[in-house]
Amino acid sequence: MTPAVVEQLRAALGDRVDTDSASRQRARADKSGHAAPGTPLAVVHARSVADVQATLRIASATGTPVVTRGAGTGLAGAANAGAGEISLSLRDMDSLLEVRPADLLAVVEPGILNADLNTALAEHGLWWAPDPASRAISTVGGNIATGAGGLLCAKYGVVRDAVLGVDVVLADGRLLRLGHRTVKGVTGLDLTSLMIGSEGILGVIVGATLKLRRLMPGAVCAVAATFPDVRTAAEASAAITASGVQPAIMELMDAASLAAVHALLALDAPTPGAAQLTLQCDGPAAASEADAIAAILRQAGGTVAVTSDPDEGERLLAVRRAMHPAMETLGTTLIEDVSVPRSALPEMFDEIARIERERGIVIPTVAHAGDGNLHPNFVFDAEPDASGVVDVPDMIWEAADELFRAALRLGGTLTGEHGVGVLKRRWLADELGDDQWELQRRIARVFDPQGILNPGKVFAV
Amino acid sequence: MTPAVVEQLRAALGDRVDTDSASRQRARADKSGHAAPGTPLAVVHARSVADVQATLRIASATGTPVVTRGAGTGLAGAANAGAGEISLSLRDMDSLLEVRPADLLAVVEPGILNADLNTALAEHGLWWAPDPASRAISTVGGNIATGAGGLLCAKYGVVRDAVLGVDVVLADGRLLRLGHRTVKGVTGLDLTSLMIGSEGILGVIVGATLKLRRLMPGAVCAVAATFPDVRTAAEASAAITASGVQPAIMELMDAASLAAVHALLALDAPTPGAAQLTLQCDGPAAASEADAIAAILRQAGGTVAVTSDPDEGERLLAVRRAMHPAMETLGTTLIEDVSVPRSALPEMFDEIARIERERGIVIPTVAHAGDGNLHPNFVFDAEPDASGVVDVPDMIWEAADELFRAALRLGGTLTGEHGVGVLKRRWLADELGDDQWELQRRIARVFDPQGILNPGKVFAV
Repeated sequence: MTPAVVEQLRAALGDRVDTDSASRQRARADKSGHAAPGTPLAVVHARSVADVQATLRIASATGTPVVTRGAGTGLAGAANAGAGEISLSLRDMDSLLEVRPADLLAVVEPGILNADLNTALAEHGLWWAPDPASRAISTVGGNIATGAGGLLCAKYGVVRDAVLGVDVVLADGRLLRLGHRTVKGVTGLDLTSLMIGSEGILGVIVGATLKLRRLMPGAVCAVAATFPDVRTAAEASAAITASGVQPAIMELMDAASLAAVHALLALDAPTPGAAQLTLQCDGPAAASEADAIAAILRQAGGTVAVTSDPDEGERLLAVRRAMHPAMETLGTTLIEDVSVPRSALPEMFDEIARIERERGIVIPTVAHAGDGNLHPNFVFDAEPDASGVVDVPDMIWEAADELFRAALRLGGTLTGEHGVGVLKRRWLADELGDDQWELQRRIARVFDPQGILNPGKVFAV
Repeated sequence: MTPAVVEQLRAALGDRVDTDSASRQRARADKSGHAAPGTPLAVVHARSVADVQATLRIASATGTPVVTRGAGTGLAGAANAGAGEISLSLRDMDSLLEVRPADLLAVVEPGILNADLNTALAEHGLWWAPDPASRAISTVGGNIATGAGGLLCAKYGVVRDAVLGVDVVLADGRLLRLGHRTVKGVTGLDLTSLMIGSEGILGVIVGATLKLRRLMPGAVCAVAATFPDVRTAAEASAAITASGVQPAIMELMDAASLAAVHALLALDAPTPGAAQLTLQCDGPAAASEADAIAAILRQAGGTVAVTSDPDEGERLLAVRRAMHPAMETLGTTLIEDVSVPRSALPEMFDEIARIERERGIVIPTVAHAGDGNLHPNFVFDAEPDASGVVDVPDMIWEAADELFRAALRLGGTLTGEHGVGVLKRRWLADELGDDQWELQRRIARVFDPQGILNPGKVFAV
């Protein structure tokens, strides 16, 4: 029997309402390995702002929860829809509506893939800087809703730095246009920033005005350096930051990560215990910056290779890019995302080593070392239960709990770029404090008085 | 007779409670020329977070409005305190608490002057980029509370891009620590951004963690170009932006501004009708960028001078910096602050010329041309009334109203960097729309349920 709300959706939206069993199953999960309990009522494939408004009017009238979804590449479970919920997919709203080179702005629908946007912008000599590792498969709307980061952030900023305005449909179906088309603008409260990283709990982002950069002219130089252990590599990365030279990319891989990737790519096994820094410099001074960086890394005990050959540079970075596939060969992975002040990177690696030692587990870790953002990977064996849900074992959560507390002690944060979703909601109050947690929750209720937008995400209750 | 609330404040805070008549008079006004009606009950000179908390607890318990104040350099009346209100001055909380060169961050109290902070940071080779024209006399807390901009914004960003976290005392006296010490962080809603530009209506900013830059090495080059009229100058600035060369500063002065400044500085009178662009380039490529800019400006019809001599460069910029003193010689000034997409700058100057023509007034205008932010100056004769309040004449507000509507039509905003305060609150809903206006108001009520924080500012009712 079709639920009444699905009948209403179908009457309003016709074949954009998808109740196919496989579609609904797919809407339960993202790339975190976690899936929502139960199966959503339907997946709405919105093709217009009006479709989103119609969906939310029906959801509001019937008190039905709505879980907004882009490409489903999230790593915190924020877009996972379960029993009794509507999965609202914006993936088909993927147009690039406007490009204004003279104003360095573009207007997009939310479902456009980050990489597709950048391919289109390149024809104008332009570029939207946020570059999550998922950029080939993740949507701009999803990047905004999670406040995504990426490899180039230390030099070129995160999503928060690259969005001028967003169009938002509220829970009751009203459309708001937030922000500006101007570089400067301080009219009232900055609700655009509030939407960035709000993970679907405040409203549905149906359009965005993006702040663009010009494509960086000139060649790119890459540097790779191997160190006897991860702490030395972390100290070397802190020395780069302290020196004032600004690489575009500075990635750190620990020994377990390096070993897994080398195995996947059929490369020679790395020296046991060795860790690696991979850097890229761009812009007119790329070559001299790469040389300066190489000198610092040698001084710090690294074995260093520098190249201005694009293919060779790409080969060096390919090792870093193979990290996620390499982890998948090891088992089910809980990818964590703590961030610490850059100078605390060596201490954070000490903490990870301590947790590994005390718990007898291995936590392969990569870091965006230029901005102090670490991705420790907890790998475990797990079979999905009858409803397809993979449970993270308690002992893994206990280790993750220790990791989070260590990051907070070092002045850091639970999540640098993946968001809270369902996977980190139980630690949110530990970082925010109870007063701020409650304040945030009450702000969300102003946007969504009934609590139908992504309930159970971000806030634990 | 001393009001009961002042007795309570004095019991808690002793001589930090100032009821001197001259102090209370000063707290009524900022640099906008506008003053609040009536006189505040007292000025509290807070010296610590605890002082601020004590003040707000008493204010909450007694339902007394609190108007937070830094150095009183605002241009929208947001810090003006009137009858029945407490003026809460943070000017004495002016310590630089922490500088972390390796993490490119500093922690400050709100009352530190922008220029004093940057003098102290320079010893570490560091720099906080926001540079409002008032930087020598305005506080960092005030810069944050107004979301200040400045001359260098097009290249180095606004306040929003340079704050990692803020400590905030809520209306009820509770202290919240918002944001991060890390470059990346997406834990929950971005309340730090919400505080930036909130003009004292959400809470009192009692501390800030600032994102720093390294001082730019190398010489600075300056370029000045004169054009036969302001539209040609505006088109030339749009051509610079479109070319992709990024000057650090690009200021435009129209004929009336130039004439007033030349008179003030006793320089030769400029060619009638002529407008001027003044630019500065910095960084390792400053000289070649200045040459590229000079070529574009000549092509656009400008008479161009380039200099790498620091004194000569300073002399060129001094003309722009003398704008506000020059306006003060002409009469009482309402300094406006519209911002438009950069490509719309020539059209916005056309609109200003139209308003001047139709209304028979002169509106000397300068612009941060690199980011499309204009400061039209409405000059008028006015005598303060018996209570010292200067009223802007209706015909000036009517002209300003036309200006705002023209900026909005061109895709712009009411205020690029000065804020809404009292002077622009009646236009706020025109830009935001009624739905967003109401939503913003309800968010403010979550922070301040009694409405004691800066009542009557930003929102008209």
